[in-house]
Amino acid sequence: MSESQRVAIVGAGGYTGSELVRLIHGHPRLELAWLGARDNAGRRLGDVLPSVEGIPALGDRVLQPFEADRAKELAAQVDVAFTALPHAASARIGTALLEAGLRVVDLSADFRLRDAAVYGRTYGEHPAPHLLAQAVYGLPELYRDKLRGARLIASPGCYPTSAILPLVPLLEAGLIEADGIVVDSKSGASGGGRAPAPAFHFPESSESVRPYKVAGAHRHVPEIEQELSVAAGRAVQVAFTPHLVPMSRGILTTAYARVRAGVSAADCRRAAERRYASGLTAVLGEGKLPDTLAVRGSARAQVAYAVDDRVKLVIATCAIDNLAKGASSQAVQALNVALGWPDELGLPEVAVFP
Amino acid sequence: MSESQRVAIVGAGGYTGSELVRLIHGHPRLELAWLGARDNAGRRLGDVLPSVEGIPALGDRVLQPFEADRAKELAAQVDVAFTALPHAASARIGTALLEAGLRVVDLSADFRLRDAAVYGRTYGEHPAPHLLAQAVYGLPELYRDKLRGARLIASPGCYPTSAILPLVPLLEAGLIEADGIVVDSKSGASGGGRAPAPAFHFPESSESVRPYKVAGAHRHVPEIEQELSVAAGRAVQVAFTPHLVPMSRGILTTAYARVRAGVSAADCRRAAERRYASGLTAVLGEGKLPDTLAVRGSARAQVAYAVDDRVKLVIATCAIDNLAKGASSQAVQALNVALGWPDELGLPEVAVFP
Amino acid sequence: MSESQRVAIVGAGGYTGSELVRLIHGHPRLELAWLGARDNAGRRLGDVLPSVEGIPALGDRVLQPFEADRAKELAAQVDVAFTALPHAASARIGTALLEAGLRVVDLSADFRLRDAAVYGRTYGEHPAPHLLAQAVYGLPELYRDKLRGARLIASPGCYPTSAILPLVPLLEAGLIEADGIVVDSKSGASGGGRAPAPAFHFPESSESVRPYKVAGAHRHVPEIEQELSVAAGRAVQVAFTPHLVPMSRGILTTAYARVRAGVSAADCRRAAERRYASGLTAVLGEGKLPDTLAVRGSARAQVAYAVDDRVKLVIATCAIDNLAKGASSQAVQALNVALGWPDELGLPEVAVFP
Amino acid sequence: MSESQRVAIVGAGGYTGSELVRLIHGHPRLELAWLGARDNAGRRLGDVLPSVEGIPALGDRVLQPFEADRAKELAAQVDVAFTALPHAASARIGTALLEAGLRVVDLSADFRLRDAAVYGRTYGEHPAPHLLAQAVYGLPELYRDKLRGARLIASPGCYPTSAILPLVPLLEAGLIEADGIVVDSKSGASGGGRAPAPAFHFPESSESVRPYKVAGAHRHVPEIEQELSVAAGRAVQVAFTPHLVPMSRGILTTAYARVRAGVSAADCRRAAERRYASGLTAVLGEGKLPDTLAVRGSARAQVAYAVDDRVKLVIATCAIDNLAKGASSQAVQALNVALGWPDELGLPEVAVFP
Repeated sequence: MSESQRVAIVGAGGYTGSELVRLIHGHPRLELAWLGARDNAGRRLGDVLPSVEGIPALGDRVLQPFEADRAKELAAQVDVAFTALPHAASARIGTALLEAGLRVVDLSADFRLRDAAVYGRTYGEHPAPHLLAQAVYGLPELYRDKLRGARLIASPGCYPTSAILPLVPLLEAGLIEADGIVVDSKSGASGGGRAPAPAFHFPESSESVRPYKVAGAHRHVPEIEQELSVAAGRAVQVAFTPHLVPMSRGILTTAYARVRAGVSAADCRRAAERRYASGLTAVLGEGKLPDTLAVRGSARAQVAYAVDDRVKLVIATCAIDNLAKGASSQAVQALNVALGWPDELGLPEVAVFP
Repeated sequence: MSESQRVAIVGAGGYTGSELVRLIHGHPRLELAWLGARDNAGRRLGDVLPSVEGIPALGDRVLQPFEADRAKELAAQVDVAFTALPHAASARIGTALLEAGLRVVDLSADFRLRDAAVYGRTYGEHPAPHLLAQAVYGLPELYRDKLRGARLIASPGCYPTSAILPLVPLLEAGLIEADGIVVDSKSGASGGGRAPAPAFHFPESSESVRPYKVAGAHRHVPEIEQELSVAAGRAVQVAFTPHLVPMSRGILTTAYARVRAGVSAADCRRAAERRYASGLTAVLGEGKLPDTLAVRGSARAQVAYAVDDRVKLVIATCAIDNLAKGASSQAVQALNVALGWPDELGLPEVAVFP
Repeated sequence: MSESQRVAIVGAGGYTGSELVRLIHGHPRLELAWLGARDNAGRRLGDVLPSVEGIPALGDRVLQPFEADRAKELAAQVDVAFTALPHAASARIGTALLEAGLRVVDLSADFRLRDAAVYGRTYGEHPAPHLLAQAVYGLPELYRDKLRGARLIASPGCYPTSAILPLVPLLEAGLIEADGIVVDSKSGASGGGRAPAPAFHFPESSESVRPYKVAGAHRHVPEIEQELSVAAGRAVQVAFTPHLVPMSRGILTTAYARVRAGVSAADCRRAAERRYASGLTAVLGEGKLPDTLAVRGSARAQVAYAVDDRVKLVIATCAIDNLAKGASSQAVQALNVALGWPDELGLPEVAVFP
Repeated sequence: MSESQRVAIVGAGGYTGSELVRLIHGHPRLELAWLGARDNAGRRLGDVLPSVEGIPALGDRVLQPFEADRAKELAAQVDVAFTALPHAASARIGTALLEAGLRVVDLSADFRLRDAAVYGRTYGEHPAPHLLAQAVYGLPELYRDKLRGARLIASPGCYPTSAILPLVPLLEAGLIEADGIVVDSKSGASGGGRAPAPAFHFPESSESVRPYKVAGAHRHVPEIEQELSVAAGRAVQVAFTPHLVPMSRGILTTAYARVRAGVSAADCRRAAERRYASGLTAVLGEGKLPDTLAVRGSARAQVAYAVDDRVKLVIATCAIDNLAKGASSQAVQALNVALGWPDELGLPEVAVFP
């Protein structure tokens, strides 16, 4: 078991980068050895991330530029790189770092889909299809064994995490039908990233709840379907509707699936409890329902189940912090597992409440 | 056609009462002749409703107490009474006012369900079952003819309005299956009323999205099912999940239903456009989606349709202001129709944006 | 007294333009005859303003381009033009429209400062200094007489309105010292306009309160000082600190000034009540304090006074809706007065609460 | 230097208690040995604090009742007690615990004021005036030496912390006049505590900015004045205006004071930098201004200075998280100092951004 690791963040100026800085700074065995950015290269970290302004050891550091041809140089300084860049760019840099000998945890979509053709239909030609077989999907609750020692980790998307966690145990245990699953998700605005845009302009986000990219148009659909298909042992397709709600952090997903005859909410809870005996996903007890505020700033997920006997549907719900369990804390959790450390090492378990 | 009407609001201190004050004050043919309250009786209106503080003609008026035995007295002063009290109380007072000769628009749940037994299972014994046959469900888009001249109007619930508007045209036209309908609704906190409670305490509502009363437990389920059953011509049951989101006003409902073979989003739009040729419900064009911010403070509803051909589901969406089209403006709209006036008379059509 | 007026809005796609559309659409004697924009020219109004999407008579209209050389053409179609463009552009177009014979209500900063040199130091060379003497400062509570019949109205800024209203009566009545006045203002994000920017990106506005442009750096300082100087009869300088708070609409200004010996809060209230006997500014009674929520969406302002006898300071507070009394409703109110109509004609008095 | 300490929280169900649970759970040398409450005694912690629901080691613990006569019993189990109860109750229980041999960090107002008569005028008769001389004001930036080894620590109020930090260095260095200081503070709703009330009901907090308890009426005025008087070496009185703004956590204070001739912002910064060379208060560089979002969830404060030369005033600003540096993290920081540990031990330095 490694004693400690030097870490690079490539793409520290965005929201997942910002959250990685917070989490790694508080981690007892990870050292923030190198911080890089693209558009923000050359700027003081404190000028880019208000959260570190006034902490000299962080705020006065300067964000480094990074080009793939400097991978060897970086490999001499760190053990692990978190890549948090837009898709395609992330893969290119991640590939170079991996080949230079670093362990890579990629927070983009680039290594999540196992089939380069599926990736291609959504994102364009894959920059490094030869690495897909090597990449491990970084959801420790499901891929614990594969993650141990993994050198290329594809950290899951935020919406997929919130859809996969409540549904996979039910599909694996055969408690629900694989057809006709509906996934209705509500996300805070930080899920849209840090670049200002009309959809996230405060006066037009406040008091606004709206669906977007409905009817299969969202890029996360193939990722959700990939993991549900693994669990079901057959191809699964879902109706996925993302919504933007006026909060900063958090995703609440409400999934609907037809239950097999006689299946109760307690059956669902038991299946999930067995599946999530280790990890950072809590199965809430009878009568409890998840709440984004109950996980804000924390590395944990909450899932809960109710069955509507009148219409024979399970209502499977999940709350995560989209920047933590939906991105950066999950990336650190996966690294913890890869290194043989406890999942929760250095991660905030108690939410910031209120 | 009546020239103008003197109006009483019984229950002016809550949120639907507050919204009635705003709307009726701005209505060219309604005169705010009498304002009553229960707990707030005897207080200055400006001390109860900050929205009128500083307008002497409103703020300095004193809220009157009201007992059912004073119905005759009130009937001498006004033509129409809006009752906005908790259920049961509303029916008792509404009955007295109706019998004293007033036209009554009731904003509680008391006259919405046609079957007293169904009411009883949810709310307890009905105080005035003999009036149920006379009450008209106050959704002008659906009950225009019955509303003309109606003397007892049951103003619809907020969630039901947002579920019925997008689904009824599809059921009536036979475009969707009546089985397996999922209704996933997201409501602002004002839907919970004006009494402070932990669920609506600002620090615990902010950054919080959460489901509640899942799996058929919400009181609005029978009302939704009643109207969908009428449209389908058979008994319909739905999975209904209400969610609380951190905004003040607004409901966004996302409904899922299986489309019949070959049905497109355009088919759904055409069915709704035909149905809503008159009234205050807009059917959005292709590619457009509803937004609570686009209807805030306005008397309008927005509905839109998308079909996910991969999974054969329609995603039918609707945005309303829960206190306006989901309560008070719909009550005024129904009165307008009852009196032979245009639906939109005196009502705000343009939303408060941003 | 004019019976009705045809109105043009030049710059209908921004927030003040959007609010003008709402207010003029609801005005019984103003007809929305022409709608123009710069960047949004050629687009459907419903695509630009979500608040009118679904209202065919508004949403399907197309925003017209406007160049100053088409002023005569426009003058044939309308009686009054509201110009809501960035400074300098607003003056250029306003000048052309004025010279073509239209009455002009300008919502930019261009005609607010009487001294072109002061304007120049803040905004650059004035495009039409010869018109400054003709422009009337559009604060009806203070300039009622000059506004009657005015053909060029300079609608006041949002911060200035909130600072001038509580302080002018005290300066005029000699109740406070003119030296050492502090103006501490808190504004919602819509004050920053509609263009997305990091400062107004939802995740960075939410849970954020911050001062900006402190120590005299804000462009509204000269306007505040101009009007306070008129009231004091001598040059007045203030410390002005604007703050951004996480709400969409509203300004709350807290001003501090040294009271002359023996002056009480009641004295301040009486002075303000005399000054604001007509208009849309309410002086709150003893123990009451203003609240942005109590004026949201309404054309009214609230002012209140408290005196801290220990430190001999008056705390003069004011709440307005920055887009209404701080911009668009004040512009309509000024036009009402110019045309000899009541201040409040067609304007919402009751706030949207909650 | 102590190796580790067992900790009790008396009053774990409120917001400062909740934040203590989060901070102490993440502290490497503090062990959460005992959790008590008053109204919530007997309930599962997870039922009271959503932030720990799903963490068995915390969520399943049961809140203990506490009576002063059980102090000895508790003293056998822990080394330190944090008391987070309403005033008077806190003092009674704190006294018993102190006398039973525990170190006590009190988060109420009970031990903050050195003069029992001043306390009496605000809160009623002091329950333990004999302990006032022994209590150390727990602001480590100012009372580091007295805190070392302290056994009774009075953790400062939230508003006072935000007013004292920016002003004390200026008063101590004689850079400002002690007369005429204005303190204008903007607080999030969590400052009002956890009990639901109309002022904090989401629909009435959202979009609402309002002053309250103006003109010296707020209970924190004597505490602010006590510490400013110490710094000035003479009695200081301030005008203090608290405001409620629509956010959950955070206080932004803007203070105004007359600068002595020739004093610049740089002079103010230097004075503060010298004063805060150690501790968790950052003095921001030229042109930077504090932001509540930049300290949310963190143990740090930000202060900044600007001088308006036209009016000879310094604008001294400060941002804190009211529940962290304004309450619970400051209490832990003070304990760290009392025990000879580094201020920041176990405390979150990087803010939760966004």
